[in-house]
Amino acid sequence: MAKARTTIHDIAKELHITAATVSRALNGNQAISARTRQAVADAAVRLQYKPNQIAASLRTGKTFTVGVLVPAADRSFFGSIIRGIEEVLAAAHYSVIVAQTHEGQQAEERAVETLLRLQVDGILASVAKGSAEFHYFEKVRQAGVPLLFFDNVWRSMPVSSVVIDDYLGAYRATEHLIEQGCRRIVHLWGHRTSYLYQERLRGYKAALADAGIRVDDTLVYECKSDPAAGQRITADILAQHPDVDGIFSSSDFAAVGVLQSLQAAGIDVPGQIAIIGFANEPFTQFVTPALSTVDQHTHTMGQIAAELFLEEIQANKPFTPHVRILEPDLVLRGSSLRKA
Amino acid sequence: MAKARTTIHDIAKELHITAATVSRALNGNQAISARTRQAVADAAVRLQYKPNQIAASLRTGKTFTVGVLVPAADRSFFGSIIRGIEEVLAAAHYSVIVAQTHEGQQAEERAVETLLRLQVDGILASVAKGSAEFHYFEKVRQAGVPLLFFDNVWRSMPVSSVVIDDYLGAYRATEHLIEQGCRRIVHLWGHRTSYLYQERLRGYKAALADAGIRVDDTLVYECKSDPAAGQRITADILAQHPDVDGIFSSSDFAAVGVLQSLQAAGIDVPGQIAIIGFANEPFTQFVTPALSTVDQHTHTMGQIAAELFLEEIQANKPFTPHVRILEPDLVLRGSSLRKA
Repeated sequence: MAKARTTIHDIAKELHITAATVSRALNGNQAISARTRQAVADAAVRLQYKPNQIAASLRTGKTFTVGVLVPAADRSFFGSIIRGIEEVLAAAHYSVIVAQTHEGQQAEERAVETLLRLQVDGILASVAKGSAEFHYFEKVRQAGVPLLFFDNVWRSMPVSSVVIDDYLGAYRATEHLIEQGCRRIVHLWGHRTSYLYQERLRGYKAALADAGIRVDDTLVYECKSDPAAGQRITADILAQHPDVDGIFSSSDFAAVGVLQSLQAAGIDVPGQIAIIGFANEPFTQFVTPALSTVDQHTHTMGQIAAELFLEEIQANKPFTPHVRILEPDLVLRGSSLRKA
Repeated sequence: MAKARTTIHDIAKELHITAATVSRALNGNQAISARTRQAVADAAVRLQYKPNQIAASLRTGKTFTVGVLVPAADRSFFGSIIRGIEEVLAAAHYSVIVAQTHEGQQAEERAVETLLRLQVDGILASVAKGSAEFHYFEKVRQAGVPLLFFDNVWRSMPVSSVVIDDYLGAYRATEHLIEQGCRRIVHLWGHRTSYLYQERLRGYKAALADAGIRVDDTLVYECKSDPAAGQRITADILAQHPDVDGIFSSSDFAAVGVLQSLQAAGIDVPGQIAIIGFANEPFTQFVTPALSTVDQHTHTMGQIAAELFLEEIQANKPFTPHVRILEPDLVLRGSSLRKA
């Protein structure tokens, strides 16, 4: 095993003094003689002791670092939120570090513990969609560390959050397909436990009902958010619902898989089946036809989350949590726009 | 201003004892009476003092956290490397935190300082392509923190690294275009200062020379790694070189922009102009025609980087740096494969 890093105890041993004296010497305590302080300083350099932000952190309680917790930093959706956060926090001299949960509860719990261990000054989190409990987020609050949610939230926790109106986004996406003449509209949705997917399902059903179209639960398919899952589910959809004429997917990733499978099956998109996704991932522009989708103002979401954090640390406690809800926009492209 | 977090000094003040006594009490030092230890423990809970990994870190010098530095975590290339790192380190009970540089030297320096301040046990970095110096990486080594590079490296620093053979990847990509009948091959390349782009340029030229094709420097265009830059440069290429019949882009992002602009101009890909990119970003599968590219074994690269880190912290110092070079593979798709 490599030697652990130099600690004040190593310096103490080297100089035959107590660790408490080393600590006081390093902190410039005048009760310690100048000679001892110099000896400690010399030993610290010689032993490569880091004169060490840890000690500074013990005094100020601040690391000027904010931890951002996301399911996957390589999804452009989260990447864009993180950039919004970084911009605002860099201007306030905070650094941002990112930990990934891959949508899993265990990884989320470990990541929260890591960020607390590193003494971040705040945690901004999009909750893993596989998480069923949040006791470790309670630990963050108990530790007095500001906690904020964005995108996917625990609504029962009294913390600030920035979300988009998933109901409205889904309503508008479905309404658009109806305006394009679709009547048998499949909805691909995500984790049953996730509030945001429930909201999208509710928006889809409301748009159908408002247009006088019968809601048919067999048209709702649970589908993972990746192209392969979209490809796999297409055959099921076509076999079970040969009359499908529109698909509203809660995920751009699944939608692009469906698009490819439909084209491979010789089905015209959008002529026979119109498709709209959700999230406005950059690749949606590159596919042919380009994929219609719902934009969630991710960059703005990140900026607002960071601003709420700065407000909270500057406020006198107790701080009243803010909930900010952004309106999503439709981005209409070739996959759903039928010729007049 | 919000109150800074509770420190040992607050507890000391509350109990009218010295901070050194608080520190010793929290560390279970038997020289402190049981009654005082209990009072300190009670006050720590009451004042929400974090009983605190910082103190543990001071003793052990370890946080079991590794910092990963990348230009942009939302590029699938880096996302995949990070997943490889996470997998190996999770098995060894290390957490991974990520900091982004956005290819800028200032941001890179700040990120390195942040990671040192957080007392990470190691730093795995892909150097920002905009960086011209590396004194802050020297600080990492001076602090005794293991440092490893992947992808883009400072070759003059004696640290372990994992890279792919960029020369070979470029050579094979260019050779493939020549085999498809291309003779006037444009090369889109990146930052002049970046070793990996220099290697790709060298590979491109060597493949041309080996095939007896004259190297024409006016066919080499510097181009940013994004679709908009690829779109903008296409008009220049077509105006200056109407005889171009192949494009080897150092970037998938630029390549997809070129592809779109060529199609908008009514040019057949791959018939008139064959295209191959570099990095095998997932979206290269979704475009039409699908984009040929060079796979860099990113997941493996991350795994190896993490394994080298574990070797290093387990080794007796001084540790001899390892350099691992991976062979890239061609991924051939519709954008470059002409019909027989």
